[in-house]
Amino acid sequence: MQDRTYTADAEPGEDATVAGWVHEIRDLGGIAFLILRDTTGKIQVKFEKDEMDDELVETGLGVSRESVVKVSGAVEEEPRAPTGVEVTPESLEVVAPADPELPLDPSGKVDADISTRLDNRTLDLRKDEVQAVFEIRAEILRAVREQFREFHCTEINTPKIVATGTEGGTELFPITYFGEEAFMNQSPQLFKQLIAGSSVERVFEIGPIFRAEEHNTPRHLNEATSIDFEGAFCDAHDAMDVAEGVVKAAYEAVNENCADELEALGLEEEFEVPEGEFPRLTYEEAIERINATGELDDQLVWGDDLPTEGEKALGEDVGSHYFITDWPSEIKPFYIKDHDDDEQLSTGFDLMHPRMELVSGGQREHRHDALIDGFEQQGLDPDQFEYYTKMFKYGMPPHAGFGLGGERLVMTILGLENIREAVLFPRDRQRLSP
Amino acid sequence: MQDRTYTADAEPGEDATVAGWVHEIRDLGGIAFLILRDTTGKIQVKFEKDEMDDELVETGLGVSRESVVKVSGAVEEEPRAPTGVEVTPESLEVVAPADPELPLDPSGKVDADISTRLDNRTLDLRKDEVQAVFEIRAEILRAVREQFREFHCTEINTPKIVATGTEGGTELFPITYFGEEAFMNQSPQLFKQLIAGSSVERVFEIGPIFRAEEHNTPRHLNEATSIDFEGAFCDAHDAMDVAEGVVKAAYEAVNENCADELEALGLEEEFEVPEGEFPRLTYEEAIERINATGELDDQLVWGDDLPTEGEKALGEDVGSHYFITDWPSEIKPFYIKDHDDDEQLSTGFDLMHPRMELVSGGQREHRHDALIDGFEQQGLDPDQFEYYTKMFKYGMPPHAGFGLGGERLVMTILGLENIREAVLFPRDRQRLSP
Repeated sequence: MQDRTYTADAEPGEDATVAGWVHEIRDLGGIAFLILRDTTGKIQVKFEKDEMDDELVETGLGVSRESVVKVSGAVEEEPRAPTGVEVTPESLEVVAPADPELPLDPSGKVDADISTRLDNRTLDLRKDEVQAVFEIRAEILRAVREQFREFHCTEINTPKIVATGTEGGTELFPITYFGEEAFMNQSPQLFKQLIAGSSVERVFEIGPIFRAEEHNTPRHLNEATSIDFEGAFCDAHDAMDVAEGVVKAAYEAVNENCADELEALGLEEEFEVPEGEFPRLTYEEAIERINATGELDDQLVWGDDLPTEGEKALGEDVGSHYFITDWPSEIKPFYIKDHDDDEQLSTGFDLMHPRMELVSGGQREHRHDALIDGFEQQGLDPDQFEYYTKMFKYGMPPHAGFGLGGERLVMTILGLENIREAVLFPRDRQRLSP
Repeated sequence: MQDRTYTADAEPGEDATVAGWVHEIRDLGGIAFLILRDTTGKIQVKFEKDEMDDELVETGLGVSRESVVKVSGAVEEEPRAPTGVEVTPESLEVVAPADPELPLDPSGKVDADISTRLDNRTLDLRKDEVQAVFEIRAEILRAVREQFREFHCTEINTPKIVATGTEGGTELFPITYFGEEAFMNQSPQLFKQLIAGSSVERVFEIGPIFRAEEHNTPRHLNEATSIDFEGAFCDAHDAMDVAEGVVKAAYEAVNENCADELEALGLEEEFEVPEGEFPRLTYEEAIERINATGELDDQLVWGDDLPTEGEKALGEDVGSHYFITDWPSEIKPFYIKDHDDDEQLSTGFDLMHPRMELVSGGQREHRHDALIDGFEQQGLDPDQFEYYTKMFKYGMPPHAGFGLGGERLVMTILGLENIREAVLFPRDRQRLSP
């Protein structure tokens, strides 16, 4: 690649050409410094005004912050420089000047609200701590895929344009597809099951999902990244083992491979990989423990969904990731299988971070006739899903799986306040661009 | 995971429980064989009628093909069995019976057309050679990501719901987004550029793109997988180096890691990793060579786009992957930069497989004012793209990139006839489900 050295690779004693953004200019009178920033870090460029070509000095010190410059010169050791080296420029080219009025200050000296940050993501991403979030996000996805492969899973890609939503017509974004009504898919659920029922058996997918929910909270998005697993011949506990393995692999990879990024985020001391097995509480145990905390005004009874304050109280009580298993059938979707000996009790499970739900999963209903009943009980027309249900007539093995929220995983691993900090260009009720 | 041994791991001398689909039953009279198939292969289950429990024999031999069964018993060496071992069942459970009338025969003895195959993908994917395509597809994506990381790229995810299309309002699927008009994104182009202009610098994305094109050919899809790259401080030749590296990495990974899958596809002899550098022809050289083949009725002149027959003639003439560089500006999109010394000539390039175009790329226009002019020349309103253009005022470095068609890559690597064979659930004008 071009004649360019990353700032982190500029070695004392050599000539180098570095290129990047003007982070800062410090003019001390006879001497001045331009701090140049690229993706690998920052480097000091020294101007000794009396000893250097006037035009070079004028150009170098007259350039506005965040302009792109290219500097060639000798690299020398300089213990007082931020990275221990500095460049004495022989030439300097202003490659792309920046307007001096910046809508957002990448040096981070002026705080910006999340809306200004998202409107100016290019500038926002020039901050070390913002770049660090997305470098870590990429590492998490890499580690998660590797862990799925350890679990013998094949990566799949399922369609995002679909004829029917996973759970019927609610909360779907409608599309016009060559004159026909279609929708953006809210979950790969039905498709991943169709593949798990083939000889591929175990699959994972990381891809976008679309939910037209009216929520506008710090933990909901209308377009999100779903990390999905489905495995033939798996039951709910097998799927929980996979979910636990994947979440732990993400923490371990960040811990091992993202030291610089954790430092940029000020997390180098406090970052911890979860230890030990995640406790598996039944729903019944969960509501008993929530009631025992005394945090809720009204005691929960069997059959209630868990309110946000209940999840919070339980999260504080448990103090680590944990599963909630064996939910009442009626608050889980139709494709979750009930226990064979108790049809009020489902095999559905959630994996919780103390702050919020990360994963929802369960063993699936694999018996054709029971599946059709499930559609009807949910008020859905099974005929509309025939492309899915008919494959259950031809040897559909028992199977289980889960969906893990990608942004929630990043958000909880890094302790981010708002889920919008975990996605480059979030989509919510108010935001459709950039 | 459960008490189950993959057929490929069943060792002679041990007891094992295997589970999978009934591939075939061969009844030879006193002795009969059930061939059980799972994701790792097939295993023979032996029934000696006179020496075994009648009910066990009846159940095992009465089960319909493609039913799911679970068999426990002793594994013994048997040189005449397909895999050299067989199981003598002590118990057999029919886990999920299959309807005896199968809409598609996974044994492959009866050919099925592509439409029947896609309507019954679960059954279709039980064929070794179909499963092999998707195992290889997953390996290609893994290898491509790894190669991008070698090139110092960070994985990104950009939004699929957008306010404006990359190239304006044509060929977009419209969505209703909370009462507002929006579209499904046809390319991550604008978004990846916004990230390349931050300190992240080099990015890649593998994700869905959506094109409302009326084409209905064996090489077009309306929902496809795009493999995108964008790099700051890169020119067109740098981007070509990355494209070439990524395509070669895909071939190498298939060659090294997919021996069984290539065999299932009958490609073990003929599969070849491309050798040597991909030639880089200018557009001018390309039209001269096409004209010299004499395959076209009308000679091409400078400024013509290349017709499909022209690409085909050139592909046969060159006989390997090749680039076409330096296209006329007017047949490339506005965001492709022109040469500084000739504004009729763009930096745009295509990477061609002899059969078809794989990649389109180029250096991007990074100068704010020239970019605005480009929108206007294309008949687009730059104000509608302000979320994108305004970031070009704040130090946008020169950058270059490309988009590589994921399904076309799989299709050309494996010599598939129809692009629909390279995607699990294709979307085209006629097909919206499954």
